[in-house]
Amino acid sequence: MKKKTKVLVIGGGTGTFTVLTGLKKYQELDLSVIVSMVDDGGSNRVIRDEFGLLPTSDIRQCIVALSQERPGDLLRKLFTYRYSVGTGIAGMTFGNLFMAALADIYADQETAIKKTCEFLDVKGKIIPVTFDKTHLVARYENGKQVMGEHLIDEPNDDLAKYKIVELEVFPQSTANPTAAKEIMESDYIVFGPGDLYTSILPNILIPGIAEAVKKSKSKKLFVVNLMTKYGQTNKYKSSDFLKELEKYLGRDVIDYCLVNKSKAFPKGILKRYKAEKAIPVADNLKSSKKTKVVRADFISNEVYEKPESDVLKRSLIRHDPDKLAKAILSIVNLN
Amino acid sequence: MKKKTKVLVIGGGTGTFTVLTGLKKYQELDLSVIVSMVDDGGSNRVIRDEFGLLPTSDIRQCIVALSQERPGDLLRKLFTYRYSVGTGIAGMTFGNLFMAALADIYADQETAIKKTCEFLDVKGKIIPVTFDKTHLVARYENGKQVMGEHLIDEPNDDLAKYKIVELEVFPQSTANPTAAKEIMESDYIVFGPGDLYTSILPNILIPGIAEAVKKSKSKKLFVVNLMTKYGQTNKYKSSDFLKELEKYLGRDVIDYCLVNKSKAFPKGILKRYKAEKAIPVADNLKSSKKTKVVRADFISNEVYEKPESDVLKRSLIRHDPDKLAKAILSIVNLN
Repeated sequence: MKKKTKVLVIGGGTGTFTVLTGLKKYQELDLSVIVSMVDDGGSNRVIRDEFGLLPTSDIRQCIVALSQERPGDLLRKLFTYRYSVGTGIAGMTFGNLFMAALADIYADQETAIKKTCEFLDVKGKIIPVTFDKTHLVARYENGKQVMGEHLIDEPNDDLAKYKIVELEVFPQSTANPTAAKEIMESDYIVFGPGDLYTSILPNILIPGIAEAVKKSKSKKLFVVNLMTKYGQTNKYKSSDFLKELEKYLGRDVIDYCLVNKSKAFPKGILKRYKAEKAIPVADNLKSSKKTKVVRADFISNEVYEKPESDVLKRSLIRHDPDKLAKAILSIVNLN
Repeated sequence: MKKKTKVLVIGGGTGTFTVLTGLKKYQELDLSVIVSMVDDGGSNRVIRDEFGLLPTSDIRQCIVALSQERPGDLLRKLFTYRYSVGTGIAGMTFGNLFMAALADIYADQETAIKKTCEFLDVKGKIIPVTFDKTHLVARYENGKQVMGEHLIDEPNDDLAKYKIVELEVFPQSTANPTAAKEIMESDYIVFGPGDLYTSILPNILIPGIAEAVKKSKSKKLFVVNLMTKYGQTNKYKSSDFLKELEKYLGRDVIDYCLVNKSKAFPKGILKRYKAEKAIPVADNLKSSKKTKVVRADFISNEVYEKPESDVLKRSLIRHDPDKLAKAILSIVNLN
């Protein structure tokens, strides 16, 4: 049997869900994902503060993405379910409560995640970047420091206009050894799409991760976001995304930048983004000796409308899983 | 293939769990259970008041009792799990949250229960006695009326010394047609063990149920409780249990009364019961032309210690599932 190509996604959040959903359809790939552990909004706040556990929302999304779909599959449906009523329960996701119960039953969250993956027939490895409880800290250009992923993801009006100049985790934490090992053994590593400062970089900030990425012989891919995000990547062009990533990862690490070239956004959507001071990412990247720019239409025609019970901001438009996977596969097939 | 003997249990609560657990081991039986729908304490209060659903704790216990055990079975373990932390979540059972999510997903609680049974590989039928939202109402000998199963199950000190003289449900509700059908088609109907006023009678109060039981050609069995319960069956002897049951069910309906004859209670346990003003049920029953009394040792050696997160009162000693099932089977084999 031909050895499968090992593709590792590094991120967390819905962008990671998207890329995994697309890649899962290719049987020739052996998928794994490293997930950031700084989320502290919504359901994750309860999981962290009240249950004393690591955040599980990103893990939950990866589990759903990598679980094998079966017709009429109840558990997969349940895992994406968010309660809309019940004091203290409304806003919680079933998947997080499922994993919290297992973490208590097994007295160990790592085992709980493993058992959940087995239970949902997950193909691939889901790897928390660390098992330490840690928080994201951002320093803004006005000198202000903010601790907490949720506050950085949705900054107040006063802060939102400033650029993030320094990002770290506090307290300093230790990388999950499996994460470093997986990075070394991968053939391809895919960063993004997803929130740069709150989903992708929080992985790279964990000591040892950036070093492992640089040491790894894998090809590194970076999927640039479709839209800017006010308060985080305000007016960023594609080169700004890459520059910021490599600021923490190291220069000339990325081999391929995947950038959307289509302007065919779903009707009326840009107006809604404009109201949030967000625009399509302008593309000014040029291929360099190290980094090749791969352009394609990556826009999904589906517009995501979140349920009322979900209190967090979510992207309205996303990468199309199949278009993105196809582009990644064509890079794999090149090499 | 020989037709299986249809055994229907009518009740709810841990007594029903016990008898089902014992009977399940006999492959020659086709089991079903009718469950009362008036529970409103603990996890059920949230399910009723906040989710607007029928109470599911008794259904949950029946599901666990009738689900097929598999080695390392996660979901069965989860279904008996009760959260101990989390604002609004502590005290809730996973099983109830599971069914609440499904009731929302399918927009129908009956379907949710059915899907849960399929999912946990339940052998047998679990039948809510009604799909109407109804409350238990008790009138005490001092003339006081109390509405709410939980308040009747754990009455305040002032009320606890009075006898319940009348029990009804309000608003009046309609029997689940499947319940009446199942009663008519059963070979054996088992009432109890369990709280007489809050688990067993709330089924019989639903219009049509007592009539169906009387009309049914089945043999009717009544398992008398091991212990009295202050505030509900204070100082009741075995004949009082039967008299009260038949007050609502109709005279001379029960064919067999199963009464514990052992005095070998686990050490120290009677002292703990005495502190709650409860004593072993004195047995003064005599076999009549209609009703035969079957005596055996039914005491379980296991003492139930409830977790702190469970806020409701629970029995410390219970019927032994295997001893009880054996006695029921010997009646089945007689006929």
